[in-house]
Amino acid sequence: MEAQAVSQKSLETMFRPKSIAILGASRDENKIGGRPLKYLKHYAFDGPIYPVNPNYPKIQGLKAYKSILEVGGDVDLALIVLPAAAVVQAIRDCAEKGVNAVVIFSAGFAETGEEGHAAELEMRRIAEQAGIRIVGPNCMGIAAFDHNMIITFGVSMLNLPPALGPVSIVSQSGAYGNVAYAEARQRHLGVRLWATTGNEADVNVADCLNYYVEDPETKVILMYFEASRDGAKLMAGLAAAKEARKPVVAIKVGSSDVGAEAALSHTNSLVGSDSVVDTVLKKYNAYRAYSMDEFFDIGYAFTSGLFPAGNRIGLVTISGGAGILMSDHAVKLGLDVARLSAAAQDKVREVIPFAGTRNPVDITGQAVNQPDILEQCLNIMIEADEYDVIIVYLAGMTSLEFLQRTGLTRVREKHPKAAIILSITMDEEAWHIFNDLNYLVIPDPTRAVGAAAGLMQMGQGYAKAEPPAPPSLPAPVEVPAETVNEVEAKRILAKAGVPVVDERLATSAAEAGRAAAEIGFPVAMKLVSTDILHKSEIGGVLLGIGDEAAARNGYDTLIERARTAQSDAKIDGVVVAPMISGGVETILGVKVDPAFGPVVLFGLGGIFVELLGDVTQRLAPFGAQEAHGMMREVKGFPLLDGARGAAPADIDALAEALSRLSQFAHENRDRIESIDINPFLVLPKGQGAFAVDALIIPSNRP
Amino acid sequence: MEAQAVSQKSLETMFRPKSIAILGASRDENKIGGRPLKYLKHYAFDGPIYPVNPNYPKIQGLKAYKSILEVGGDVDLALIVLPAAAVVQAIRDCAEKGVNAVVIFSAGFAETGEEGHAAELEMRRIAEQAGIRIVGPNCMGIAAFDHNMIITFGVSMLNLPPALGPVSIVSQSGAYGNVAYAEARQRHLGVRLWATTGNEADVNVADCLNYYVEDPETKVILMYFEASRDGAKLMAGLAAAKEARKPVVAIKVGSSDVGAEAALSHTNSLVGSDSVVDTVLKKYNAYRAYSMDEFFDIGYAFTSGLFPAGNRIGLVTISGGAGILMSDHAVKLGLDVARLSAAAQDKVREVIPFAGTRNPVDITGQAVNQPDILEQCLNIMIEADEYDVIIVYLAGMTSLEFLQRTGLTRVREKHPKAAIILSITMDEEAWHIFNDLNYLVIPDPTRAVGAAAGLMQMGQGYAKAEPPAPPSLPAPVEVPAETVNEVEAKRILAKAGVPVVDERLATSAAEAGRAAAEIGFPVAMKLVSTDILHKSEIGGVLLGIGDEAAARNGYDTLIERARTAQSDAKIDGVVVAPMISGGVETILGVKVDPAFGPVVLFGLGGIFVELLGDVTQRLAPFGAQEAHGMMREVKGFPLLDGARGAAPADIDALAEALSRLSQFAHENRDRIESIDINPFLVLPKGQGAFAVDALIIPSNRP
Repeated sequence: MEAQAVSQKSLETMFRPKSIAILGASRDENKIGGRPLKYLKHYAFDGPIYPVNPNYPKIQGLKAYKSILEVGGDVDLALIVLPAAAVVQAIRDCAEKGVNAVVIFSAGFAETGEEGHAAELEMRRIAEQAGIRIVGPNCMGIAAFDHNMIITFGVSMLNLPPALGPVSIVSQSGAYGNVAYAEARQRHLGVRLWATTGNEADVNVADCLNYYVEDPETKVILMYFEASRDGAKLMAGLAAAKEARKPVVAIKVGSSDVGAEAALSHTNSLVGSDSVVDTVLKKYNAYRAYSMDEFFDIGYAFTSGLFPAGNRIGLVTISGGAGILMSDHAVKLGLDVARLSAAAQDKVREVIPFAGTRNPVDITGQAVNQPDILEQCLNIMIEADEYDVIIVYLAGMTSLEFLQRTGLTRVREKHPKAAIILSITMDEEAWHIFNDLNYLVIPDPTRAVGAAAGLMQMGQGYAKAEPPAPPSLPAPVEVPAETVNEVEAKRILAKAGVPVVDERLATSAAEAGRAAAEIGFPVAMKLVSTDILHKSEIGGVLLGIGDEAAARNGYDTLIERARTAQSDAKIDGVVVAPMISGGVETILGVKVDPAFGPVVLFGLGGIFVELLGDVTQRLAPFGAQEAHGMMREVKGFPLLDGARGAAPADIDALAEALSRLSQFAHENRDRIESIDINPFLVLPKGQGAFAVDALIIPSNRP
Repeated sequence: MEAQAVSQKSLETMFRPKSIAILGASRDENKIGGRPLKYLKHYAFDGPIYPVNPNYPKIQGLKAYKSILEVGGDVDLALIVLPAAAVVQAIRDCAEKGVNAVVIFSAGFAETGEEGHAAELEMRRIAEQAGIRIVGPNCMGIAAFDHNMIITFGVSMLNLPPALGPVSIVSQSGAYGNVAYAEARQRHLGVRLWATTGNEADVNVADCLNYYVEDPETKVILMYFEASRDGAKLMAGLAAAKEARKPVVAIKVGSSDVGAEAALSHTNSLVGSDSVVDTVLKKYNAYRAYSMDEFFDIGYAFTSGLFPAGNRIGLVTISGGAGILMSDHAVKLGLDVARLSAAAQDKVREVIPFAGTRNPVDITGQAVNQPDILEQCLNIMIEADEYDVIIVYLAGMTSLEFLQRTGLTRVREKHPKAAIILSITMDEEAWHIFNDLNYLVIPDPTRAVGAAAGLMQMGQGYAKAEPPAPPSLPAPVEVPAETVNEVEAKRILAKAGVPVVDERLATSAAEAGRAAAEIGFPVAMKLVSTDILHKSEIGGVLLGIGDEAAARNGYDTLIERARTAQSDAKIDGVVVAPMISGGVETILGVKVDPAFGPVVLFGLGGIFVELLGDVTQRLAPFGAQEAHGMMREVKGFPLLDGARGAAPADIDALAEALSRLSQFAHENRDRIESIDINPFLVLPKGQGAFAVDALIIPSNRP
């Protein structure tokens, strides 16, 4: 799961084939088997097209073949539009013909149940042997608009003709991919590459992502997915995109339980935990969108290529009301509506004495009579160099003629690199003029603020130095295949460098007495048995044991309670530990995600996790610096930082433990299912921190 | 502040004048003084228009007057477009002429400082004497489109001609009002009445709200405001709107500190606490929007007049992906994406065997070939009677011809009252056809879900029974004008029915000893002095006092510490109280908002309020039932409900105390600034609850 680019050369022939066959081509241009042929002809695909259909000599004016095997020339790409039952044989034929890639529209495979799943595995097997890449089944096709290659049955590519641009789209859902193309075009976004992956028998969203990153003309990637079974490849693609500064906007659906259930029945794919995907996207600086408007607003904003690393937003407005609306939204998104410096405020007042100057700079309705006020005030804002993004808001539909009188063109000539969003409703002609000047035009003011936040989020991610590599473990620490008791679990964690409580396992009353004396009174005593899960419920924990005799008695009491509760329980003994007061209870955890590997969780104990779900997580491994950032993400962090008059806790020790745990989880990712350290007690600064209880669940996976 | 409709008869002549004079009328149709005249002529205002301008005999083809006093006929409404310095005299002239209402565009009044504020007070004084209503100054005018009466200088009413409809708009900000009109029209929303109130020297947003509620043809009210100085009138209008089932969609800006600061400089008005406004809007079932899209989406949705009282959403989609996207968003908004009943699922499968049937019902791309699938599945969903709102999602731009083949028209004939949103991109012709069938058309799927949530929120609000009236206090309890000590504060609250700790004030060591003995050991002792605010910092609290001698010593110790800390402090004595363990610490508070009266706050003690800001509030007064709903809104509520193995707390006692406190605050709203009861300890069920400490700050207002 290292972040390295996966070479995607094998997709080249798929996206840019020299020749195409259509198995199941139809004479009816409006049928699923007829539309792709129509599009290829309509948009002048530059290469031979071979309709395959045994029933007709000619299809849509082209010679038709009874079988792909009858085609004389080479076939790079074959589109299969046949009933499900005929698909596997068709792939055999493609293999024999030496086809490089197939696109399968046909549904009726893994999404329908066992039988379909078996057929999908079979087609995959044949394709792998023959070196064929498969797109689908149950997809809506692919397109490379720079190559006039459009293989789909959606109507939007006919209704909204392609216009080349910097955006490439990949969608697991065919219908959503179709919508995404239509929406992009309706919003004037130029699209370059487009793919829907459907059931993902072979080519998946991650494959396309990697290919798009390597495509020189793709600048922004829009990605829709429901599940990712190939986490390593997805992470490699995201890492490569980050490295290449090609921002990725992702919609990952299934964040709700209901959604997740629908996803399951929709693509028959296992949805990884949504929060893990969120963690992955954050790690690789990909932007996660939650609605179509956000998906395209942000995608559009990213085409500007301007990613300022700060979070200060400047607002120039003709309406005080809209200015406050934007301020409110900016603050909600964590932006800094920084006050304009006094010197610059003075300059604004020189231009228009009654202006609001603080930020928002309110140039008032006066701009209607004197459009050049805007130019002057905007220049003052830019030249003050106090903002990362500036939004200009004008009210209502604004004519090109008026916009030209505002001097926005001159502002751009003077300041070509300033990130400026025009929150202005304008007609299409004006849109193209100002968009070509690399202004972003997003009429709705709150959405303009959202886009500014997106640019800044991306910029901050790009500017952030890679955190130092986490420390390796002192020596490899292996996890046994069976669940071990808590004492053993802590012993293993201690070897990995996670500090644990100073405790002794006693297997007799006498040992218990001696152990207690060594530790010093009072002590706590706890039954150790992997068979008894809820120890406190059977009275398996004794606190405040004050002397050696009580410790010996305590041992006998605990063993007797265990026998009474469950006579056949395997009892490993009694653990004796010091009674500790003070410190902050935290919870450290690990969950190994099947797609993305181990994830480390952190939260504060008690109500924070149980009542508030106040946890944060990171992909393992990571260093102490990252752990420091992580712990600051929980709402309860001030309790570690000395809130409410308490002593600040030893967060350095906590950070070190989190980092060590992450490294341990990383090295044992194939052997672990999950780890719970609860509580992990953090003492006041300088006094350390340690695991009080721990559970390691080994993996059952092969 | 009772919820009763304020009669707005006096605004009738203002919105529907028979004659209009324009003071400062301009010959230039594009000047601020020229545009209103142009609009009145262009849209054929049915009554005499009198341009007033001493420099020309004719203006835009009409006879001009040197002064309004020269006009022969009556003048109902006068528009003033003069330099600020000339406005006051103009109003004197209007008074002499017997004008009913004036609209003042001119800026340069209260928003600019002292002098302008004085001029505004003067114009108000003249107008009050003469019985003239003033709109503005610093506004963009008013319009009654059913009366062809358009008084504004914004261009949008020329660019986007009016179309009568069910929506009336009022905006404090002129520019925002202008945008709101333009946006409404661009979104095909018909507008009836429109007003911008600017500085609100007289007519304010609340006046217009009340007038709109009484307007028979207004069905939906869109309201933008920055501050409300007249809380009683606003609440009366909201209550009347709720009563009349005319939904109000409000944008109230200034939710952030930055925004609030900008609001202050923008309209020179005092912004009430944003959370109080939120509480007010919730109480009267008004919908608060946070962006323009939301403002208009919801406003548009409300024109359907369909307000189902449940929260179950049904989704019919052609794209599984979009279905999950909508599900995710619905869950985020608290909607129930309820599973379709098995019987109905079977029926769906009869129509299309491979459909997703659970909800979302995924009718798949098959609908492209067989459009009537949609009709059949939609009918099944409606007839199952399991959903409050149903959204139909079709992907991409959809042609009218296709839509007609889906049978949506027949569905409507069969089920005229079903709340159905079409999340479908269609052209204007199709929009009008389906909109006229009372389908809501909101293409973006997540925004469609948001609109559904809005309909349900409104419906649930309308369906909710009015909570029973709160109990009156046993007898009037007055608050002294000076701040009293905590013992006295608790005595006052106890009289109002708020239970307080059983404690004694001792003014000598001997008294302290006796008091402690009466209460029973151990006791807590605390210094009582209104001069010493932070008692614990000077050691002014003693805990766990075990016998009478210790209590006597404790008294002397506390008095000495007080003298040492502040020799001139007035010391009222030492309070002796029982030591109590257990119970849940809560915080009860009151803040009297200058515009909306007393608001009662509730939160859990400690980290919940301090760290998490986990509080909720209600307008006073309210009964115990409402208090029960209130306490359930805080995240920490489970701690009162027996979370983590604790005994359930006496929430009935807590609810009763909250209600009593609210009644007390209500009855003393003019004498109180704020009350803090912290902590208010809630013991286990059946054991009661009581105030441990209390502070009442009397009002300084006259």
